[in-house]
Amino acid sequence: MKLLSFEYRNQHSFGVVAGDRVIDLGPHRAALGTSLRDALERGALPAIAEIAKQSEATISLSEVRFLPVIPNPAKILCVGINYASHVKETGREMPRYPMFFTRFADSQTAHEQPILRPRASEKLDFEGELAVVIGKTARHVSAADALSHVAGYACYNDGSVRDWQKHTIQFTPGKNFPQTGAFGPWLVTADEIPDPSRLSLTTRLNGEVVQQATTDDLIFSVGEVIAYCATFTELRPGDVIITGTTGGVGAFREPPLWMRAGDVVEVEISAIGVLRNTIRDE
Amino acid sequence: MKLLSFEYRNQHSFGVVAGDRVIDLGPHRAALGTSLRDALERGALPAIAEIAKQSEATISLSEVRFLPVIPNPAKILCVGINYASHVKETGREMPRYPMFFTRFADSQTAHEQPILRPRASEKLDFEGELAVVIGKTARHVSAADALSHVAGYACYNDGSVRDWQKHTIQFTPGKNFPQTGAFGPWLVTADEIPDPSRLSLTTRLNGEVVQQATTDDLIFSVGEVIAYCATFTELRPGDVIITGTTGGVGAFREPPLWMRAGDVVEVEISAIGVLRNTIRDE
Repeated sequence: MKLLSFEYRNQHSFGVVAGDRVIDLGPHRAALGTSLRDALERGALPAIAEIAKQSEATISLSEVRFLPVIPNPAKILCVGINYASHVKETGREMPRYPMFFTRFADSQTAHEQPILRPRASEKLDFEGELAVVIGKTARHVSAADALSHVAGYACYNDGSVRDWQKHTIQFTPGKNFPQTGAFGPWLVTADEIPDPSRLSLTTRLNGEVVQQATTDDLIFSVGEVIAYCATFTELRPGDVIITGTTGGVGAFREPPLWMRAGDVVEVEISAIGVLRNTIRDE
Repeated sequence: MKLLSFEYRNQHSFGVVAGDRVIDLGPHRAALGTSLRDALERGALPAIAEIAKQSEATISLSEVRFLPVIPNPAKILCVGINYASHVKETGREMPRYPMFFTRFADSQTAHEQPILRPRASEKLDFEGELAVVIGKTARHVSAADALSHVAGYACYNDGSVRDWQKHTIQFTPGKNFPQTGAFGPWLVTADEIPDPSRLSLTTRLNGEVVQQATTDDLIFSVGEVIAYCATFTELRPGDVIITGTTGGVGAFREPPLWMRAGDVVEVEISAIGVLRNTIRDE
């Protein structure tokens, strides 16, 4: 199943993608909750599957305004360095532990919505990533059990303001400018992606491939990343983990490649789809 | 005014401290909102002051269970290194920019509630800090104007799990274990602290002074810290900034001093009060 959050006729809702149309779950909010996060908290994926079988897809995908897959996660945990090829590019040593920084929910943007280049910087970079959405509370879980806590997967563009990321050793400022983290287009439920280490990920800037990887190059697997996080914090339904980016980011190119107003950036992941954003100046 | 969040007879509420008693603002929730964060979002401080003048303090402070001053901040921004004396202790260079990491809301605990030493580590350290609570939305503000966006101040113990903090260069894991960040006992409104650079801060472990500073030793003033944050993120009412700790932390002692089950740790700030917690094992 593909699940999305969207706005239609000025109302926020969520639904199921059926081809190029949407089954609106808004009319079922009494049973499912008022948002995709709510529905995950209620363990409503089986109920949604039942509803989807019996419902008509009444809205065209082209008529909705996409929202971030989860517009309001309580936690967005981001792995810093997690592809062997990216580690080589940055000149760092192979890490012993996954590295985590965080994003606030309001740093997000959605599929087909702009990514904002902030007034404060010209150094806006792309990072195509696989996003994991938690479906079941996880604390003190093993890497082997961790995938059973996943609701599904989506694409993420962890848009990074490199000079602000490097003001100090903590990445927080460069990762939290408003509308820099694109999350979409939808969540593909975990039953359709039984093994998240077999995906291919491509980032394109104005049609040109700038990053390409397969998730078997991840240093810490999705299960290992979840297990590590679940030791220091409780993961709850709707929480998001973005699993790190691969080689090819603009900052390490010679000369550096920054995103500018009007650029179109895409993150495509096999079995999920394409997340597309246009850059706009704040 | 001193404002607190508390639980009384199994109900969460918020109120005004009057001597050793509490004026419960719960009965005024239609006008003020259901929490201190709600009330700040509604700009209700003047209304609270009016209500406080006319109301009786019906509950004894000793009967309430304290909650974190703001139990559910959307953002908790933490300055890493901000006292000149602490910079000397860590051997780092004097920073050009304030360093920010973040806490999740569920990493917090309250006055007179336990701080948890997690199963995963023995290396639980104290960090006494001045906490700033935002009262008015701030984006792109100058350091000179920033204090007008502050609702008030409280004590914070930024309890840190040092080995997990140092797994990588990002501090996130060591700063987010559940119930490690103590926030209390109450908020003192900004009208009573017109100049936050004139406070004295003392941390005591089992009665012994382990940290002592005055806030004029802050490398980046409260105004500068807010102005920097408000460039990369929008600060909203109820958001929290903890302004960094001073010298004396346990990790840099020889031998290191870790907090253990049964220890009592206190953070006292002049014009605010004493935040007291007992350590308990997870």
